[in-house]
Amino acid sequence: MVLTDRVLMGPGPCNPYPEATAAFCRPMLGHLDPEFIAVLDETIDRLRQVWQTANPLTLPVSGTGSAGMEAAFVNTVGPGDVVVIGVNGLFGERMCDVASRCGARVVRVEAAWGTPLDPQALLDAHPSPKLIALVHAETSTGVENDVRSVAEGKRDALVLADCVTSLGGIPVDVDGWGVDIAYSGTQKCLGVSPGLSPFTMNERARQCRVPTPQSWYLDLGMIGDYTSGATRKYHHTAPIAMIFSLHAGLGAVLDEGLEAAWERHRSCGKALQDGLEELGLKLWAAEGHRLPELTTVLVPDGVDDAAVRRSLLAQYGIEIGGGVGEWAGRVWRIGCMGNTARMANVTLLLSALAKILGR
Amino acid sequence: MVLTDRVLMGPGPCNPYPEATAAFCRPMLGHLDPEFIAVLDETIDRLRQVWQTANPLTLPVSGTGSAGMEAAFVNTVGPGDVVVIGVNGLFGERMCDVASRCGARVVRVEAAWGTPLDPQALLDAHPSPKLIALVHAETSTGVENDVRSVAEGKRDALVLADCVTSLGGIPVDVDGWGVDIAYSGTQKCLGVSPGLSPFTMNERARQCRVPTPQSWYLDLGMIGDYTSGATRKYHHTAPIAMIFSLHAGLGAVLDEGLEAAWERHRSCGKALQDGLEELGLKLWAAEGHRLPELTTVLVPDGVDDAAVRRSLLAQYGIEIGGGVGEWAGRVWRIGCMGNTARMANVTLLLSALAKILGR
Repeated sequence: MVLTDRVLMGPGPCNPYPEATAAFCRPMLGHLDPEFIAVLDETIDRLRQVWQTANPLTLPVSGTGSAGMEAAFVNTVGPGDVVVIGVNGLFGERMCDVASRCGARVVRVEAAWGTPLDPQALLDAHPSPKLIALVHAETSTGVENDVRSVAEGKRDALVLADCVTSLGGIPVDVDGWGVDIAYSGTQKCLGVSPGLSPFTMNERARQCRVPTPQSWYLDLGMIGDYTSGATRKYHHTAPIAMIFSLHAGLGAVLDEGLEAAWERHRSCGKALQDGLEELGLKLWAAEGHRLPELTTVLVPDGVDDAAVRRSLLAQYGIEIGGGVGEWAGRVWRIGCMGNTARMANVTLLLSALAKILGR
Repeated sequence: MVLTDRVLMGPGPCNPYPEATAAFCRPMLGHLDPEFIAVLDETIDRLRQVWQTANPLTLPVSGTGSAGMEAAFVNTVGPGDVVVIGVNGLFGERMCDVASRCGARVVRVEAAWGTPLDPQALLDAHPSPKLIALVHAETSTGVENDVRSVAEGKRDALVLADCVTSLGGIPVDVDGWGVDIAYSGTQKCLGVSPGLSPFTMNERARQCRVPTPQSWYLDLGMIGDYTSGATRKYHHTAPIAMIFSLHAGLGAVLDEGLEAAWERHRSCGKALQDGLEELGLKLWAAEGHRLPELTTVLVPDGVDDAAVRRSLLAQYGIEIGGGVGEWAGRVWRIGCMGNTARMANVTLLLSALAKILGR
């Protein structure tokens, strides 16, 4: 079998850290084996470090980032609860869909795709919402939303942050900002395969959980008894190999140092964005709100979006992403996340793009 | 870091096939990459072969076996729907919990733990249920339930079978028996790490799906558009590395041949059960209904359950399982599944147990 090697500069997955890949080959252990419990405990401790939290209820949800989103909503909102949701991209829209399926009354606060949400508009949207939810790093647009201001102004509401594309790439300070609930994905700035969703919830949110969530699989009360309870009571079989890989990927991030990892993402993103502008391309996300780890750029007039992406893939082995929704065919989404966030990859992509576009 | 190597003879996970472990190190691909789509398509084709089905809606659910259980219920039953559920172990109980959270009216049909369900009792329990659900291989007791008779007598009801511990270990014939919906897990007789749930649903069940399931993550309408639709529309990011591993694990099963794999499980199970009786131990599951891949045996009077399991683990590196619920401390559950189903492992366990018990 011929294996294909890619430089993964789409919106995720990124190329994983070698440590994360190697850990998959660790011998299998049972989910109740004391040796596995030790690895799980250390994984959760590492998650607390990258989340910058002391929350006891911190764990990897056994599904992808979208399972983390669903876990967040099903455990905190039920029929009739008012939820304010910021919508300026695909993942804000997804939150509305997930919350609606829980029976929540959704109050949408919108901003144009490519621009950030107004934190004050989220805070003013309803006098007493149960929850205010927003996406920190909108993977569909490359825009950063100001989670910190929303969390600091929240009053009695819970604040839920989607950190799928931010955790490990830009500062996320759960306890410092006062975020009550947050989830992420493993395949973005944490540099691991997709498959798990790092999750954290503070005591305040834990106290007002839905007693019997509509999802058994994502019931954090029961899952928490296994991941951090005194009894380690079996709920569902943990995805052992994925947890080995996450454990090692987080080790790589923490060995480098969180701040150093942020700086690497920042400098690679800046070089990429500067380089794209030097090629005469126009960045899409509003200036001052651009994510370093996910850059969006307009497809130039007269250029065939799909043909360029096919050439990058076929001639250079580089994957970049297209736009979604109304923006399909009109923007490219270029990720520089996890182990992909290296200057060599930025240089390669810019050179390849220059050749393909004839610039 | 010192790595621990185990002989995994608990109720799952088993030791994975070497091919399944090696495939984790395949270079990462994007979830929309044509090369990945080809792997996914081939994985789904292999799943159809092990399920013995032509169902178009066959796929790996992005979670463990319990996520497959939840996907089965949330997509087929809603508030007020009548669901008949066979309960003769932990996983039948779990089905009742999951179905109740969907708002279903649950009609329980019970049998004592360690004995099989009566198929006719399931068929007679209600005049017109929407769904009849049962566990094929009860992992908590080692009992096989007669899915075939229930499926053949179902009239207008849908039949849902939990095949977590049966698929790949004993015959499962979805199309031949007329099972409408079935799910499994990767970490049992398929010989792969836990993390995915092989799933299949026929056209009859697909036609009467819940239009908007309460779970967004497990909405099979949207997931099916990605896994087998013409557009391959993005839903959630597929767990790439786990799918590589499942692809390779299924390849190992099919290279051996399904019937040869069943025969290997059968002969190892028989040798194990005969050997335990020769040691003077008493098998728990009712004779004639014993699973070869999961053997249950009573803990002899005066023997400390946990101490024996600790000795097996510490002295021989062998994991076996304890009982659950009322049967905790009273039975052992000994798995012989996937790549663990080898005569050498049976021989090792029997010898180790004989020494520890002084028989």
